Amino acid sequence: MKKKLVYLLSAITLSSVSLPAFSADAPIRWKLAETWPKGLPIYSEGTHEFAERVKELSDGRLIITIDSANKHKAPLGIFDFVKSGQYEMGHSASYYWKGKDVNTLFFTTMPFGMITAERFAWYYYGGGAELAQKVYGQYGITQYPGGNGGNQMGGWFKKEINSLEDIKSLKMRIPGFAGEVMAKVGATVVNIPPGELYTALERNTIDSLEWVEPAMDLRMGFHKIAPYYYTSWHEPGSGLQYMVNDKAFNELPKDLQSILKTAMKESAFEISTRMTHEHSENWEKIKQEYPNIEIKTFPPEVMDALKAANQELIADLEAQGGLTAEIIQSQREYLRKVRNWTSISDKAYLNN
Amino acid sequence: MKKKLVYLLSAITLSSVSLPAFSADAPIRWKLAETWPKGLPIYSEGTHEFAERVKELSDGRLIITIDSANKHKAPLGIFDFVKSGQYEMGHSASYYWKGKDVNTLFFTTMPFGMITAERFAWYYYGGGAELAQKVYGQYGITQYPGGNGGNQMGGWFKKEINSLEDIKSLKMRIPGFAGEVMAKVGATVVNIPPGELYTALERNTIDSLEWVEPAMDLRMGFHKIAPYYYTSWHEPGSGLQYMVNDKAFNELPKDLQSILKTAMKESAFEISTRMTHEHSENWEKIKQEYPNIEIKTFPPEVMDALKAANQELIADLEAQGGLTAEIIQSQREYLRKVRNWTSISDKAYLNN
Repeated sequence: MKKKLVYLLSAITLSSVSLPAFSADAPIRWKLAETWPKGLPIYSEGTHEFAERVKELSDGRLIITIDSANKHKAPLGIFDFVKSGQYEMGHSASYYWKGKDVNTLFFTTMPFGMITAERFAWYYYGGGAELAQKVYGQYGITQYPGGNGGNQMGGWFKKEINSLEDIKSLKMRIPGFAGEVMAKVGATVVNIPPGELYTALERNTIDSLEWVEPAMDLRMGFHKIAPYYYTSWHEPGSGLQYMVNDKAFNELPKDLQSILKTAMKESAFEISTRMTHEHSENWEKIKQEYPNIEIKTFPPEVMDALKAANQELIADLEAQGGLTAEIIQSQREYLRKVRNWTSISDKAYLNN
Repeated sequence: MKKKLVYLLSAITLSSVSLPAFSADAPIRWKLAETWPKGLPIYSEGTHEFAERVKELSDGRLIITIDSANKHKAPLGIFDFVKSGQYEMGHSASYYWKGKDVNTLFFTTMPFGMITAERFAWYYYGGGAELAQKVYGQYGITQYPGGNGGNQMGGWFKKEINSLEDIKSLKMRIPGFAGEVMAKVGATVVNIPPGELYTALERNTIDSLEWVEPAMDLRMGFHKIAPYYYTSWHEPGSGLQYMVNDKAFNELPKDLQSILKTAMKESAFEISTRMTHEHSENWEKIKQEYPNIEIKTFPPEVMDALKAANQELIADLEAQGGLTAEIIQSQREYLRKVRNWTSISDKAYLNN
């Protein structure tokens, strides 16, 4: 009888009540690697809130622990971590993987490209997600928007830029594709590790640098030694990304897949919105503490040269054809249409 | 022994395995009433996607059915439906409840106020949610952002507005607080049901009307009979809302509460993003079909008069003190700071 009871209990547990394999006793455990140092405001805080939300939504059935750069020691190793499955997820920025696959470049931000709301619209409704799938699917990864840092400032400058000649005598720290554009118009582009930037600027090793925006710039202190803060041209809405290993994702029960995707989308929205808030708060603080900081915009001559250089570099990429050309054409056509709308709505309103 | 077995089984079912009361066999069923007619693109589609997401995330444990205006026959009865608990949830816009409580006015959009990204930042990080709680909490309701329609166009006009005199001879359909502002500068403001608007404009019963934006305007056909499309001043980022009955919410298990809140946030993000996309697509279509439509902006004289009238009306409200003054002051101070940021970022970039 005892045996029968055990059998019955086991039958109940395994079939008739049909408790799922992922019961509260045995949560599924995932690891997420992020590019950011532990506790980096907004970015790393955002991923931790995301993990907390997944836990809440799944009632503890999916637990995601986060390793920051301090732990895994490879801030630019996130793509490989997720590809190999060493980490089920990552949080980073797509353009860091340009060296592995040039087509990843387009999913962060592009000089003279889309602003935040325009980029989200392209991604979710204008074909962006499908193109990202074509790029990342080859590596067994799906990438999702992971927030947007907003319109990045053009950088901190120790001297004013009044002509193209001034650019040609400029030593600037500006990484990535925007750095290529700047180099093409004649600037000396250097790369200096973040920890050495302040000293380099102070000692005139460089004349200027691009960092992020007020939310991140305030703690770096550049405003104390470089009085000109230039407006944006190069990163008009810098998208972050979540990456998920496809094999791990496919092994999740359907509702946990849905929970993961929804929590990533919420996180993308929260990080973007919080960036707007923090930029606003920090710009206020910078202005109060350093009222002599001047907001500057490159003169038309410089802007035109940067646009031309950017178009040439894009044309070189487009000439490669294939998926690269497909992405460039999709973004160009979407930008044309959506900017027509932005121009008669937010732009016209802000100019009134 | 049989009795004991039954007892054991019952103990297992009720306590040791602790199957929750909301098992798949007995889902919790909620009803949502929306202001919109059935199938209204983006808005009603958005609420249906929201309900679908809640079902997915909860693995069928929370089922929300939606009644559109066609069914409940009270598009402006949503507040009362949710307050009484007749519906657990609603989707609408806060400024429709101004007649019940003037403080609800501020949670949609205000003339010369915040654009979409600024409003979300104020709501989530700048004190907006707490103020909404003070307003709606009195009625046993919590309100959440339910998407944003973006920067509304100033309307379709049959004749150009070149001076304040032109406004004074204008008959315009423009509802709500913006209508009060328009009336204060001398326009004849009339209210006409949506179904009669086209005919009224065609027959010169009115000279102009404010509707929404390209995504919604295209199907109304106003562009066929009024060639001037004016840019925005009056609704720079129209927020929609979800309302939830507090008592019903508090009876939900913790994880379903979390699922509901996250799904509403995702929906707010999706509806806003989709609006950007649809405006862009529809504006393109309007331009192609009717290339003679002209985008116009009121001359400075008119804009200044509208700003002054708006400030006077706001000052009257602020003089009431209490929560009304608190909300007005919170929005004014937040707008000042966040617009400083928008000006040096997106605005400067768009003007380059």
